[in-house]
Amino acid sequence: MRRELFTPDHEVFRELVRDFVDKRISPNYAQWERAGQMPREIFAEMGELGMLGITLPEEFGGMGLRDYRYNVILQEEAARALVTLGTVRTQLDVILPYFLEYADPAQRRRWFRGLADGTLLTAIAMTEPGTGSDLAGMRTSAVRDGDHYVLNGAKTFITGGLLADLVIVVARTATDPGNRRAGLTLLVVEEGMPGFERGRMLEKMGCRVQDTMELSFTDVRVPVANRLGAEGAAFGYLGNNLPQERLTVAVGSVAQARAAITATAEYTRERKAFGTPIASFQNTKFELAALSAEVEAAQTMIDRAVSDLVDGVLSGADAARVKLFCTEVQARAVDRCLQLFGGYGYMMEYPIARLYTDARVARIYAGTSEVMKMIVARDLGLS
Amino acid sequence: MRRELFTPDHEVFRELVRDFVDKRISPNYAQWERAGQMPREIFAEMGELGMLGITLPEEFGGMGLRDYRYNVILQEEAARALVTLGTVRTQLDVILPYFLEYADPAQRRRWFRGLADGTLLTAIAMTEPGTGSDLAGMRTSAVRDGDHYVLNGAKTFITGGLLADLVIVVARTATDPGNRRAGLTLLVVEEGMPGFERGRMLEKMGCRVQDTMELSFTDVRVPVANRLGAEGAAFGYLGNNLPQERLTVAVGSVAQARAAITATAEYTRERKAFGTPIASFQNTKFELAALSAEVEAAQTMIDRAVSDLVDGVLSGADAARVKLFCTEVQARAVDRCLQLFGGYGYMMEYPIARLYTDARVARIYAGTSEVMKMIVARDLGLS
Amino acid sequence: MRRELFTPDHEVFRELVRDFVDKRISPNYAQWERAGQMPREIFAEMGELGMLGITLPEEFGGMGLRDYRYNVILQEEAARALVTLGTVRTQLDVILPYFLEYADPAQRRRWFRGLADGTLLTAIAMTEPGTGSDLAGMRTSAVRDGDHYVLNGAKTFITGGLLADLVIVVARTATDPGNRRAGLTLLVVEEGMPGFERGRMLEKMGCRVQDTMELSFTDVRVPVANRLGAEGAAFGYLGNNLPQERLTVAVGSVAQARAAITATAEYTRERKAFGTPIASFQNTKFELAALSAEVEAAQTMIDRAVSDLVDGVLSGADAARVKLFCTEVQARAVDRCLQLFGGYGYMMEYPIARLYTDARVARIYAGTSEVMKMIVARDLGLS
Amino acid sequence: MRRELFTPDHEVFRELVRDFVDKRISPNYAQWERAGQMPREIFAEMGELGMLGITLPEEFGGMGLRDYRYNVILQEEAARALVTLGTVRTQLDVILPYFLEYADPAQRRRWFRGLADGTLLTAIAMTEPGTGSDLAGMRTSAVRDGDHYVLNGAKTFITGGLLADLVIVVARTATDPGNRRAGLTLLVVEEGMPGFERGRMLEKMGCRVQDTMELSFTDVRVPVANRLGAEGAAFGYLGNNLPQERLTVAVGSVAQARAAITATAEYTRERKAFGTPIASFQNTKFELAALSAEVEAAQTMIDRAVSDLVDGVLSGADAARVKLFCTEVQARAVDRCLQLFGGYGYMMEYPIARLYTDARVARIYAGTSEVMKMIVARDLGLS
Repeated sequence: MRRELFTPDHEVFRELVRDFVDKRISPNYAQWERAGQMPREIFAEMGELGMLGITLPEEFGGMGLRDYRYNVILQEEAARALVTLGTVRTQLDVILPYFLEYADPAQRRRWFRGLADGTLLTAIAMTEPGTGSDLAGMRTSAVRDGDHYVLNGAKTFITGGLLADLVIVVARTATDPGNRRAGLTLLVVEEGMPGFERGRMLEKMGCRVQDTMELSFTDVRVPVANRLGAEGAAFGYLGNNLPQERLTVAVGSVAQARAAITATAEYTRERKAFGTPIASFQNTKFELAALSAEVEAAQTMIDRAVSDLVDGVLSGADAARVKLFCTEVQARAVDRCLQLFGGYGYMMEYPIARLYTDARVARIYAGTSEVMKMIVARDLGLS
Repeated sequence: MRRELFTPDHEVFRELVRDFVDKRISPNYAQWERAGQMPREIFAEMGELGMLGITLPEEFGGMGLRDYRYNVILQEEAARALVTLGTVRTQLDVILPYFLEYADPAQRRRWFRGLADGTLLTAIAMTEPGTGSDLAGMRTSAVRDGDHYVLNGAKTFITGGLLADLVIVVARTATDPGNRRAGLTLLVVEEGMPGFERGRMLEKMGCRVQDTMELSFTDVRVPVANRLGAEGAAFGYLGNNLPQERLTVAVGSVAQARAAITATAEYTRERKAFGTPIASFQNTKFELAALSAEVEAAQTMIDRAVSDLVDGVLSGADAARVKLFCTEVQARAVDRCLQLFGGYGYMMEYPIARLYTDARVARIYAGTSEVMKMIVARDLGLS
Repeated sequence: MRRELFTPDHEVFRELVRDFVDKRISPNYAQWERAGQMPREIFAEMGELGMLGITLPEEFGGMGLRDYRYNVILQEEAARALVTLGTVRTQLDVILPYFLEYADPAQRRRWFRGLADGTLLTAIAMTEPGTGSDLAGMRTSAVRDGDHYVLNGAKTFITGGLLADLVIVVARTATDPGNRRAGLTLLVVEEGMPGFERGRMLEKMGCRVQDTMELSFTDVRVPVANRLGAEGAAFGYLGNNLPQERLTVAVGSVAQARAAITATAEYTRERKAFGTPIASFQNTKFELAALSAEVEAAQTMIDRAVSDLVDGVLSGADAARVKLFCTEVQARAVDRCLQLFGGYGYMMEYPIARLYTDARVARIYAGTSEVMKMIVARDLGLS
Repeated sequence: MRRELFTPDHEVFRELVRDFVDKRISPNYAQWERAGQMPREIFAEMGELGMLGITLPEEFGGMGLRDYRYNVILQEEAARALVTLGTVRTQLDVILPYFLEYADPAQRRRWFRGLADGTLLTAIAMTEPGTGSDLAGMRTSAVRDGDHYVLNGAKTFITGGLLADLVIVVARTATDPGNRRAGLTLLVVEEGMPGFERGRMLEKMGCRVQDTMELSFTDVRVPVANRLGAEGAAFGYLGNNLPQERLTVAVGSVAQARAAITATAEYTRERKAFGTPIASFQNTKFELAALSAEVEAAQTMIDRAVSDLVDGVLSGADAARVKLFCTEVQARAVDRCLQLFGGYGYMMEYPIARLYTDARVARIYAGTSEVMKMIVARDLGLS
């Protein structure tokens, strides 16, 4: 069906991205997967092409476009080529919004140029061992000491922690037994600060071009000038960005599901079994047709949600619906597509195997499907 | 999420329909179900209120709006009240397009006023015992004899056959072994023509306010002036309307699925088990939340497809995707909602039981899910 | 796979049942469905053939075999012919165990002969409007008054209430705020007792040969001699029989699912679409093959469970697993089989439509799937 | 429910295996996974304990028990500890049967002792690049030249190829255009034969303790004395063993699904979210309960099938049903269990992640689910 989301400007950007993906990402992707990370220089290249600064102000080398549709294009074009942009997605869709919303003028001057040109890489450290999605149970503490906060705690599941120059750490600056959500603050920890240590790299099932690791903070003295936004306000900040954070997962899920179908349709037209192309079996046709219908539904939902997000009216409950539905569509799609590859589908050299293992996290991160259901149920008035 | 499909004019119409449904349909619906039909006078009332002539030219008492969104509103408002408009949907969404596209000036003068004011009711007779969806295998024959066609054959699964004043019959006027699709013609048989007989009413699982029956034609002399469009052109005519015909099923499916969720959410908030409202069980919340996400996806897909249809760009393959997906969403929704009613869900006095039995046909009529998959697979280049 | 459940004696009985079903049930079934009940004389015929007294002592005309496998055969042979035995299943599998376990010698003399020869029909009245499966919330009361209990209350969802000569009523004879399960007693109300009234027949989606109705009791004086078992012990009695009561639903589900597959395989071999038998489409093959595998799993599970029940070792949790799984297999089977019938599947004259509407209650009665999951979860140590 | 499959002798063996798994397999498993293989010495240890020679004659150091139940125990005990026995399963369940059935006395003397004591490791080479499951399309050729066959061809997806001392190669010794199944012969290629080369190790999604690789044969001179069975008879031989080969996959699937549920139940009892154990959420309970019911069904099916296999009456169609059903149960189980681990489920250090990636191949190897459906459909008389 028609998509009415994009303007000609977006399509120009799409061409740029497509070209970059084909020339710089795809040829190196397998190697980066083995390395467990993308190299630092690729971020600089993306910065130079303007891909990282879309939303940043022009005075700092950005394009000044608070338009999430560009981010959509990045994911779609990567997926089209059966790859991802690794931690770039996290930086642009999850982390930059905090800088854009809450950085004060001095912080903007210190960091925005580097964020735009790809020389400053970022991570956000929320989850702690044992607390999962329960922000209110967070124990990492930051105690004010003059012009500094003294930060102590351990974080895990940090995407992009390996190369991050700036890590936004969610820390507890106060404890209010009557309001577990109060007292959380965002602090920007910089690479090289004494007491900030990187821990283990976690071995994940998939998503291997983006590192995931543990970070620890032992008496790290973080200047008050590195606080993002107001003290004690982090819970609200994190909540404000959740719709986009969840939508971005869904956007990737649908783009990858679509790519899986295209790749599988192509494979089945070429590959033969019992002397005839697999595509000629009714089962192949029906499986792919059913998936195509689901993905088309998911795509219309995504486009609607992106348009709502751009206009500032996407509710948290609708973002939850979108993430819940689209990640399940992806799960079904990659599973059934892989099946049509037979034994080859189980071999990591076939991209469908990577699409499959990459996909499994989508129903988990940025809030599990179970958390999405809780949010939607509340919206339905069930309690 | 936002819907951008409707204008204020549509919303005025929606109010009118809602009022009519609440006052005239809902109070009588159970009785009509037992009778197996809606009474003739209800059509006249709808005609008087302008609901039947939306797409018909103003000169014949219509509103001259070739705008399918009005039809959407009719289904949505009926579903909201947990009822349907029975054969009205078939008349407006499936049959009227043939009259509008192919009636010549004389036919327009003879029939359009009655179609608009609800005094002429219609049916379309395609399926034959034993041929199913395979139009090309049709055996009902119409042999030209001077100014008449002599029509012989039997048709089945005729919606609205009981009260129909005009029946569009698809008949074979020629046989071309090289082209099984050629030689089919639309003839309008009128109530009272000798040799036109109504057969058995078929007892269906649901959809009981709309009669479904067998019709037979024995040497019925149909004037050539009753031919709709060109001789031998029916296969193409029928194909042209298929996207709308399939979309209309999907529109109903989503409207009813949405209504099922609303009704179930309400029921579970009131009904208690083990001393607490069913709505407070996590299973209830999760079931309804998952359905809500699916239905929201289906709704965005519907809105996109309706907009494409209105603009004349909805492809047959996309209509197939929409019907396939939306009818499956409905199937899951009514099944899981019914479950939450416990034993009451199995009692026909609870509307959820009717929504369940009504829903089962949606994956079958206007082309089964299997036929939809064949169409989509072809669109994916699988063969 | 092999079944090792039955002995030659069982197979002799199977022949008897098969013959009876073919001669006396199948030819009349459609008529009984329209009537909403099976006629009283059919029970007498079954009694005469020994089908009703299998478990009753020989001195009262029974066969003295506490062997549930005979009951299995009754359901299997009915399902094979695409019918059911209506309320007979309830009488034999659900109600008779209470008489067998708890009737005192006098009661045995008064009732067993009639239960064996089919002249005494029974029902059990547990559910009350508004309480659902929550026995502990029961409000029907029986107050001791000399040699009688004075019974007051309303019951609903009573299978076989229409013809029942004896109704086992679960009534509250005492209230212990500390133990909601205490104080329930079984009383046998007899047809004709003043104050015992039959209410509405409930219109169900399916299972139409077995009536379901409301019963009311207004100052019914029930002799203490009609009490079944000890006063206040009913909660335990009801629990004891639950494994068999749930297994019996599962037995029927699997037998009917198996019958649906057989009937559908046969239909698809005969019915053509696009000039070729539907059975030749890969989709048909794959759908039926997948169902066949599921039903075979369900059958092995049933056979294991029946064997465990016969040996007195079937746990409540395992009975819950069996009911949960087998009724879901049935649900999938009848839905997907019906789909292969196309439009005919929606017509009540095709048995698949009846199998579909009959099946929907299986996940609900004798404890919903949700209740089954609660029981299994407890067995898994989750709480 | 009760299992009646095993005798006390089996249970003694089970203790032995359990002990060995706990002491020798579990502690080293993670390391073997990283290495992509189990070390040669572990096979010798198993041989010494009698685990490899169960079915081999006593004169060669075996136990002389053609009893597949011992093999079942091996898989069950490995799964219980959340590991597998890697290529041991292939050797015992898939390959040994060919040696046992078709080795002549001289071959038995040459090889059986080594097979029993774990010093001779084996592989079977069937699949060729591009032919998949289509044995009849095989192109590897063996041309008779005096006392030798000259073997040429390439094989892929060879489990255990890395350490194999003996490789049973399926080769074409004749071509009969009228019978594509004729002309296939089993030849035992030995490590060190000139022209026999190991190719790439294939990187699989899971099952990483068992290597999978490509093998190539260039003018390998294989003595006629190394032919297993009659020339041209391989197609039949391979078919004979298929029921066991498929059952063995299903046995593993159910054992691992069961282990996944146990591990997940345990995890959810310990792990808290929002301050309460995950096990206390109704969603957790219902998910695990539903899986538990499915796995119990699968287990009864397995036990029935194993018993049928032991008695020599398991049909190919029933083995297909068992594999189809049980591998799908496993797929659902590992997916839904993993979900309950949240982000930890995506980390390879949690066994559930390995169970998930291991499981994906079960629906593919030893015949895909699609092939299973074809076999079952034929058994249902659909064609």
